[in-house]
Amino acid sequence: MDKQSFDSYLTTHRERLLEDYKDFLRQPSVAATGQGIVEMAAMVARRFATLGADVKVVPTEGNAPPVVWAELGEGDRTLLIYNHYDVQPAEPFELWESPPFEPTVRDGILYARGASDDKGELATRIHAVEAWQATQGKLPFKIKWLVEGEEEIGSPHLHSWVEQHKDWLHADGCLWEFGGFDEKGRFELTMGVKGICYVQLRVKSVDHDLHSSLAPLAPNAAWRLTWALSTIKDSDENILIDGYADYVRQPSEAQLEMLRQMPNEEEEIKKSWKVDQFLKGRTGLEALKQLYFTPTATICGLTSGWQGMGTKTVLPAEATAKVDFRLVPDLTPDIVADLLRKHLDKHGFTDVEIASYNGYRAEFCDVGAPVVKAATRAAQLVYNQTPVLIPNSPGSGPMWSLSSFIGGVPVVCAGIASADNRVHSPNENVPLNNYYEGMRYMGAFFDEFSKV
Amino acid sequence: MDKQSFDSYLTTHRERLLEDYKDFLRQPSVAATGQGIVEMAAMVARRFATLGADVKVVPTEGNAPPVVWAELGEGDRTLLIYNHYDVQPAEPFELWESPPFEPTVRDGILYARGASDDKGELATRIHAVEAWQATQGKLPFKIKWLVEGEEEIGSPHLHSWVEQHKDWLHADGCLWEFGGFDEKGRFELTMGVKGICYVQLRVKSVDHDLHSSLAPLAPNAAWRLTWALSTIKDSDENILIDGYADYVRQPSEAQLEMLRQMPNEEEEIKKSWKVDQFLKGRTGLEALKQLYFTPTATICGLTSGWQGMGTKTVLPAEATAKVDFRLVPDLTPDIVADLLRKHLDKHGFTDVEIASYNGYRAEFCDVGAPVVKAATRAAQLVYNQTPVLIPNSPGSGPMWSLSSFIGGVPVVCAGIASADNRVHSPNENVPLNNYYEGMRYMGAFFDEFSKV
Repeated sequence: MDKQSFDSYLTTHRERLLEDYKDFLRQPSVAATGQGIVEMAAMVARRFATLGADVKVVPTEGNAPPVVWAELGEGDRTLLIYNHYDVQPAEPFELWESPPFEPTVRDGILYARGASDDKGELATRIHAVEAWQATQGKLPFKIKWLVEGEEEIGSPHLHSWVEQHKDWLHADGCLWEFGGFDEKGRFELTMGVKGICYVQLRVKSVDHDLHSSLAPLAPNAAWRLTWALSTIKDSDENILIDGYADYVRQPSEAQLEMLRQMPNEEEEIKKSWKVDQFLKGRTGLEALKQLYFTPTATICGLTSGWQGMGTKTVLPAEATAKVDFRLVPDLTPDIVADLLRKHLDKHGFTDVEIASYNGYRAEFCDVGAPVVKAATRAAQLVYNQTPVLIPNSPGSGPMWSLSSFIGGVPVVCAGIASADNRVHSPNENVPLNNYYEGMRYMGAFFDEFSKV
Repeated sequence: MDKQSFDSYLTTHRERLLEDYKDFLRQPSVAATGQGIVEMAAMVARRFATLGADVKVVPTEGNAPPVVWAELGEGDRTLLIYNHYDVQPAEPFELWESPPFEPTVRDGILYARGASDDKGELATRIHAVEAWQATQGKLPFKIKWLVEGEEEIGSPHLHSWVEQHKDWLHADGCLWEFGGFDEKGRFELTMGVKGICYVQLRVKSVDHDLHSSLAPLAPNAAWRLTWALSTIKDSDENILIDGYADYVRQPSEAQLEMLRQMPNEEEEIKKSWKVDQFLKGRTGLEALKQLYFTPTATICGLTSGWQGMGTKTVLPAEATAKVDFRLVPDLTPDIVADLLRKHLDKHGFTDVEIASYNGYRAEFCDVGAPVVKAATRAAQLVYNQTPVLIPNSPGSGPMWSLSSFIGGVPVVCAGIASADNRVHSPNENVPLNNYYEGMRYMGAFFDEFSKV
């Protein structure tokens, strides 16, 4: 590629492109409430059309937010790009220093809901394609671009959409929706996600809350829940559900080597958490293996009885817990729900109801795939640094549906986020420099992907 | 006593006395907020003065609501009466059918905050004294009347007050502040209370809530609390705190005999709770022994992490539990807090803080004392029934301070409450007939107490 003309285009058109990015941010698109979703899908589709793409706004099951699907470029190789046009709710509004849907630049930083997650990533990539087409001619490979509208509420209809359109989705590599830099400005590439099964447990023991003096005779929902939970994981952090541990695999040598190369931030993290040590004294490679390659069982919330000030002598009729299980490959949300039900029954907790569960499967991709090599080389060229390679994220996302499910497409997560981007929080932001450099990075990535 | 003149006085003066009772109810006196407390103490003192009593409004520690102390009558025998002039907060106001501090009669039932608990009891007793004095002359024994203003917030200053005025408090028997009728109109007399130790447990594991993906490394306050609680009581309802069970005594033969005589309401209770059986299948005498004579450990509330709708993948930094322990004699709140602290430390839960605790000691009184015999005979005379004798209450109150602590004064709980009196709830009420008959009962009780 001719980098000079590419860069020069971005400089010349900087103001117009930034305004285009801000147009995305001015359009609310809150999946949780539906606000602006239809308008935002249309706006993204129109923008793709200006790139000469073949664009479709494709319905999802149950009239949920549509998928915007665009195809552009030609070539033997195909890059699948995954983004989303929805954002988190902006509440609490009063904590924003400027209105969430009025993009505002302060000290070189752009503030708005979605500035980073995920309209910043989407704009960077669209603008890089525009600059490529204007300065390098046709894209040297095919892009299939999937932009969904429900990522922030757990992508409930993405998998069935993929299932219905599976024949559209063949690709040689996939660029994921997020990515960016750590606290020290190191560029990170991630090649997978853990799965998740988020479970709501509920116990109802008696018809209504009772006076606590009746404890010798009346079953207490809070005790039942406490006992049931304590059978799931013991105080040595062993998950006690039969069959759960069977899914744990040893990391590959390539994955392990990435862990060995990762910068050690243990002291900073412990200081921030105000702990003397990690759980069970885990440290070094052992800590990283646990973080990236083991399934978890985490109480996210407990609710029962009197939670106000002072004392109320009540025997609770109901108790609930929210528990998330972070998953490794093949341990699906359905399997977890099934193993958990059997576990509770086996321990006598047939009264503990799995009121609901949902989640994603894990996806640990090939860390040595061409798409990863292209993303690595582009970082060396544009950011003058070898990126931190993270074999997979301890977090979760619908990656399995766009990778293993469609035939094993390797995925890399590469983006423009800063460590302090406040995604999902008030004052979400992106340093404008990340956006400007991010377009150059994306141009280099396209170039490398066409060659690896 | 001349019952005819006594009854006739009550009939003649019915309207004026009822208005006097309503005056008590019109004066808010909420211990939790302080609203009207000083005014109510003064009103009670003025009313006692009209009976010719020697009245004192006596300060408590830290300028808390004062104790109203009245002495009246002469004789060898002394009756201690315990009442309280404070009430529970009236919230939620919108559920009241008439305003809580505007006493209103509907279908022969008087509605107001405090109508039953405890201004109804106090008015009944004051009016019975007035009628006695007007129709029978001087009281044939001495009354020492203690009316406190903090019962509804756990009587935090009553014991220290009693300690300071111990020489005032000698008595031959004590009439407690509450009592009344069961669902089937059976009159009940109770001769004790369990103690209580209400504990707030708190765990803080990391500085702030973390993303739940960090679960392999970060300690989770909700798990720590769950594990700590599950060491306190097992799922077979065994309390596992070393030393706790040492305090349990077998009931006396007289207490057991009362349990054997109690009406069996098991089917009605199970139906109301919607359970097939009581805990561990307890039934009959065994269920009653558990209810009245064993200490408990009850989770009253659990709070941690995300409790809203849907899913939030958070690892909670903090978790709290409210736990009440209902106590048997000699197992004091201080002993419980000490045993619990040792228990938590022994099981490795030094991070589980006992953030606060408070409570009362248990008091199981002499079920055959003269004051009980007088209360029983009065019921036979006025209500034409032999009362249900309950050896002690599974609930709690500051009875020990006014019984064992002052030399072993036997206590009986006898009052005018109906089973549906809604104390502590909206639409608190008393059937006016309970009040009218209650004054007659109190007259008969005075007469019997002077003779037993």
